Amino acid sequence: MARATLHVCTTCRRAEAAAQDQCPPDQRPGAWLHGLLSRSDVPEGVEIKAVECLSACSNGCSVALSAPGKWTYVYGRLDPAADLAAVLEGAARYAATPDGLVPWRERPEVFRKQCLARIPPLEIPVESADV
Amino acid sequence: MARATLHVCTTCRRAEAAAQDQCPPDQRPGAWLHGLLSRSDVPEGVEIKAVECLSACSNGCSVALSAPGKWTYVYGRLDPAADLAAVLEGAARYAATPDGLVPWRERPEVFRKQCLARIPPLEIPVESADV
Repeated sequence: MARATLHVCTTCRRAEAAAQDQCPPDQRPGAWLHGLLSRSDVPEGVEIKAVECLSACSNGCSVALSAPGKWTYVYGRLDPAADLAAVLEGAARYAATPDGLVPWRERPEVFRKQCLARIPPLEIPVESADV
Repeated sequence: MARATLHVCTTCRRAEAAAQDQCPPDQRPGAWLHGLLSRSDVPEGVEIKAVECLSACSNGCSVALSAPGKWTYVYGRLDPAADLAAVLEGAARYAATPDGLVPWRERPEVFRKQCLARIPPLEIPVESADV
């Protein structure tokens, strides 16, 4: 089981100006980011998933990290080219935690500065665990 | 089991100017919103939970709706007094869905306009359902 799912919004139109210039003209910046991530050396335990909209349209490009029993984090205003390594590093550190809480100093700068939201883990009652 | 957990950030300092004026001086706007919601007629199936930070500090007041098997939604820039009824109505509609996807026209305006992000539901493998 993946210890982290990195959801990548493929419909994000907005990106930093520098990235927008480099983005292939037939792709949205979000799809370009997803392609770059998918072709990267993805850290162990991290699964990359395309999602059609993370509803963070004014803060694209955007990604979300989630896993069972962990806090979920959403990040935005990403530059697909410049932030690629940091996103992968941050996902690896998240995957290595039991609860999703990476110590502040160990988070990549882009995760420290461009967090849009975090959400507590779901509490799944024992009696419904097999539903 | 709650069909929706409404997480309310109690540390949010920021709120619409009008709300800020009405907020008791000894409370943060987020804690005030949590108190107002907790003392309301909470819809069936909705559980209200305080959370110390949703990391949406520049978009307070903020809340998140989540439930097992459903999309998670995060909303921000809420006015605790003016938006109270809409937040409760939106939570009730979310609780009534199987997947968290409320048809666009049925969402309160504040949910249509002030969504900060949404995150797909977790897929919990069958073999780990009892972990």
